[in-house]
Amino acid sequence: MGAMEATTQARGPQKLTGKGQATRARILEHAAELMYANGVHATNNEQLRRAAGISGSQLNHYFPTKESLVLAVVEWQAERVLAFHRSERFTGFDSLDSLREWAHFYVAYERSCREGCSLGSLAGEIVKADLDVRADLAHAFEQWRDVFRDGLRRMQQLGRISDAADPTRLAHLLLSAFQGGMLLSQVARDITPLEDALRAAIDHVETFAISPAAAP
Amino acid sequence: MGAMEATTQARGPQKLTGKGQATRARILEHAAELMYANGVHATNNEQLRRAAGISGSQLNHYFPTKESLVLAVVEWQAERVLAFHRSERFTGFDSLDSLREWAHFYVAYERSCREGCSLGSLAGEIVKADLDVRADLAHAFEQWRDVFRDGLRRMQQLGRISDAADPTRLAHLLLSAFQGGMLLSQVARDITPLEDALRAAIDHVETFAISPAAAP
Repeated sequence: MGAMEATTQARGPQKLTGKGQATRARILEHAAELMYANGVHATNNEQLRRAAGISGSQLNHYFPTKESLVLAVVEWQAERVLAFHRSERFTGFDSLDSLREWAHFYVAYERSCREGCSLGSLAGEIVKADLDVRADLAHAFEQWRDVFRDGLRRMQQLGRISDAADPTRLAHLLLSAFQGGMLLSQVARDITPLEDALRAAIDHVETFAISPAAAP
Repeated sequence: MGAMEATTQARGPQKLTGKGQATRARILEHAAELMYANGVHATNNEQLRRAAGISGSQLNHYFPTKESLVLAVVEWQAERVLAFHRSERFTGFDSLDSLREWAHFYVAYERSCREGCSLGSLAGEIVKADLDVRADLAHAFEQWRDVFRDGLRRMQQLGRISDAADPTRLAHLLLSAFQGGMLLSQVARDITPLEDALRAAIDHVETFAISPAAAP
């Protein structure tokens, strides 16, 4: 891509026409897929142009620098991960069953072992790079943690787990076990580390469970 | 560095003289430091030559390709991490106190928040790269997990934790919480995610503790 320009120029799709927004979204979708499959550094302009079916000048128009593209992909993946975790399927993580359902999904997900977490693997690859992306990543992980924390607080309100549980600490355990387990499973090409870590983390949440009979 | 050559050529210091081994070790030490501080991709020949005080032809002699250098750095960091975890300090992780001491060390370690785990951050950066390094990383993480697993088994033999504990699963929880917590802390530039994840993971091990009076 061209020389470094102010990244703000390319950050938002706000000023684009409907057709422009669609083209930008198509580029992003393919960029996210290539970076998830092969890594940020192995993803180059030519692959992206071919995958998205666009010209070099189009690519340059929407994403004048690789930095602007990487930033947009981080936002794209963060939105997808958060939307998935906030979906009906997990009912706001207000029960142990929803946590087990979540673990089960990722343990069964065929790309966990090869490509890891779509956001975590991106973070691992670029957090040390000289990109203005750390704050965006930090914000995304905070929101993700808050999905778990809010669920754990709700479980306390519903009398499902004890007030002795620390929702923030347990949320950090769940998200860390997930990120670390994904990395280990990806390296080992074996789902066991992730499966074990999530099961043990959720078992720990369960040690705070209040039996239905004992609940107020 | 030069064109790709068979990596086996540069993998071992076996055929080097004493002086050659010392030079190779000095290059490796500086390469590991640069990659830990700035990342693999941001580390280039010129920085490395300056840091290690060597010529380009010397660097080429010991590490003809970047791949050979990255492989050697992975081995170097793996050896250091394993030696640290096997040191007297942690007494083979045969007690809850040794686990707490370990967590305390990394929570207090000033580089946890900036550079993350020396081996995990390397893995996160290169696991998707087209390098012949995954098997080496997998082996290192397995050995690391086994340090914890063996410690947990010893705790069971000593009657410190119950036979209901699954040492492999708990070892995966500890290592995943560590790797994930390191990534989250690095992204947030805040030690809390790591601190919380390790504390909760060790709390979970403690739920299997047998009080001294109850032990056989």
